[in-house]
Amino acid sequence: MKPIEIVLSIPGRPAVDYPILVGANLFAVKAWLPKTAISQIVIITDNTVEKHYGAQLLGALQQAGSACLLLSFRAGERSKNDTTKRRLENAMLQHRCDRSTLIVALGGGVVGDMAGFIAATYLRGVSYLQIPTTLLAMVDSCVGGKTGINTPYGKNLVGAIYQPMGVVVDVNCLKTLSKKHRINGLVEAIKVFLTYDAASFRYTVLHLSQMLQGDQALLQDLVIRAIKIKAGVVSRDETERGERSVLNFGHTMGHALEKASDYRVLHGHAVAYGILVEATIAYLLGLLDQQALNEIKVCLAQLGFHGKDLQSYDVDQLIEITKGDKKNQVGQVRYVLLQDIGRVQFTDGVYVHVVGDELVRQAFNSLISKDH
Amino acid sequence: MKPIEIVLSIPGRPAVDYPILVGANLFAVKAWLPKTAISQIVIITDNTVEKHYGAQLLGALQQAGSACLLLSFRAGERSKNDTTKRRLENAMLQHRCDRSTLIVALGGGVVGDMAGFIAATYLRGVSYLQIPTTLLAMVDSCVGGKTGINTPYGKNLVGAIYQPMGVVVDVNCLKTLSKKHRINGLVEAIKVFLTYDAASFRYTVLHLSQMLQGDQALLQDLVIRAIKIKAGVVSRDETERGERSVLNFGHTMGHALEKASDYRVLHGHAVAYGILVEATIAYLLGLLDQQALNEIKVCLAQLGFHGKDLQSYDVDQLIEITKGDKKNQVGQVRYVLLQDIGRVQFTDGVYVHVVGDELVRQAFNSLISKDH
Repeated sequence: MKPIEIVLSIPGRPAVDYPILVGANLFAVKAWLPKTAISQIVIITDNTVEKHYGAQLLGALQQAGSACLLLSFRAGERSKNDTTKRRLENAMLQHRCDRSTLIVALGGGVVGDMAGFIAATYLRGVSYLQIPTTLLAMVDSCVGGKTGINTPYGKNLVGAIYQPMGVVVDVNCLKTLSKKHRINGLVEAIKVFLTYDAASFRYTVLHLSQMLQGDQALLQDLVIRAIKIKAGVVSRDETERGERSVLNFGHTMGHALEKASDYRVLHGHAVAYGILVEATIAYLLGLLDQQALNEIKVCLAQLGFHGKDLQSYDVDQLIEITKGDKKNQVGQVRYVLLQDIGRVQFTDGVYVHVVGDELVRQAFNSLISKDH
Repeated sequence: MKPIEIVLSIPGRPAVDYPILVGANLFAVKAWLPKTAISQIVIITDNTVEKHYGAQLLGALQQAGSACLLLSFRAGERSKNDTTKRRLENAMLQHRCDRSTLIVALGGGVVGDMAGFIAATYLRGVSYLQIPTTLLAMVDSCVGGKTGINTPYGKNLVGAIYQPMGVVVDVNCLKTLSKKHRINGLVEAIKVFLTYDAASFRYTVLHLSQMLQGDQALLQDLVIRAIKIKAGVVSRDETERGERSVLNFGHTMGHALEKASDYRVLHGHAVAYGILVEATIAYLLGLLDQQALNEIKVCLAQLGFHGKDLQSYDVDQLIEITKGDKKNQVGQVRYVLLQDIGRVQFTDGVYVHVVGDELVRQAFNSLISKDH
């Protein structure tokens, strides 16, 4: 299958335009290595991804004639902090990386967020490329320039919106991914489709068991569909003043669940439950009909997510956590509300709507009740 | 004197346009407090500035009806680090500051850089206002959006270019400034004039002793002249890909001197010596004539800076430090070269030029020799 190129353009800032290449065997770097003057390439990755692809990419870049350095950190959300950032920056300073350095983020969302944030702030900004290796990063975080680190107060609370100079999605990387991590990515793609594209949602449901098994052609198709939608959203609202917040569907409750589990629940898995809760809120508000809600529940159940699993959480604690979410004004919690599969509520110029605690509690309780 | 408003516009990004207000008694905040929705105001300052102006500004903002919080840190360049940044961010998170928070940077360059960098990265970016209280910050750092912190490897090596939503320069703040700090600011203004505006340079030389004594009307005029030039440069080259690097005149050697002195020498004072060395390099290259070089030397001597003071430094150590400067490609050190007072060399599309170590050594030695 020939690689597909999608271009992300931000109106009025042509210099920021960047290509997103989706294909297989892209570690042949000559296809995408930028032609601009680069003094050094720094691959930033984690110890798990390094084992699979570190030597391969480093070798390919060196063979292409680039001075290249690989820096890695311990895999996992817990490493995505200030201390890791400082350690990597100091290593770059020690190697005298200058403003013409290119950072290559090789890994999943944690690596992309960390490497992107370093690129945003190293010498006040250097170029970087995203090479996502997980399905979750491919369908979501590799596009759009959101970067950041976690703090003791929550995830991604310090960061920047800083666009990469390109994204290289090599679906071969999916071969080393566990089923648990495939599910992680499938949920984010489903979230995109639920908010924007009913046809892709139904296409995904139709092929879900093959995708779950890792069918590469179908997954590549899924990635392309999700990225096309996301690139459009980002180009219309890069800094999330409006429309981009639609992509937070399922994430208000999802982030709270992640935090309540002390990040033992994977991001996409938490978002799956977040989608269940938030779709139920829309149903209780009379926005989403019963049939659409059921379609969503059936789809997520196929991936192993059921409302009753939420029994182990305390809804009041979750609500309390949502109040500290960065997307919310003090004390008021806002949600993206589905009107139908593929369509969200947009009223009075806003995409996010205040929902009272009682309704959230009701949605949660209806999900954990035996009938569901 | 009525306040003057200068607008900084970045072509193609009208949303970034911001006003720079220069006048007296501007702590009457109603004149400039933004009309946009603000949930909370956080004044970030240092313990010295807090003593002089903290209560006054906090009171004025609260009287204007804003929820307002003041956070301060220990004054001085040594505080401009990661640890201080994290502490302030955590305090903001603890107070549940959200995306509609406005940060007010009240202080000199260190405060502006720190508060601006926090604004750039807190929840991926919130608005901020610069209220510079030193002459150095007024003529230079408050305009243009350069923010950042120091690392063990040097100054400002981690940061962002992130424009404020406005700048409020209240020249009344200069009343509490020591002569040493007035000189600190005068040097940066002189640097701007040397590279862009011969008339303002000569105007400054003419009134230098009154400015040194703190004449407020003259200093206000100096600030306005310097800001107008800088705003123009930044609007033409926000991210320092080209023209903005002209403003680094005197800074390649200046930063090295600061670092070699372990930051005991004030920034502007180090830049004064940097100007002497870099102007001498231009003279030795046959670009700057003897008379212009002498004019510069006489002006800086009036402020107390003489070439022979450099005797206590080791030129080879200084050259070594310049090689780690973030503006330089590995191993090659670039300088802004004066062609005349008010004009720099611009050849082959570049404003910075590689100068060999031997020439730097020669310039340095000619300055410390007894004749000068």
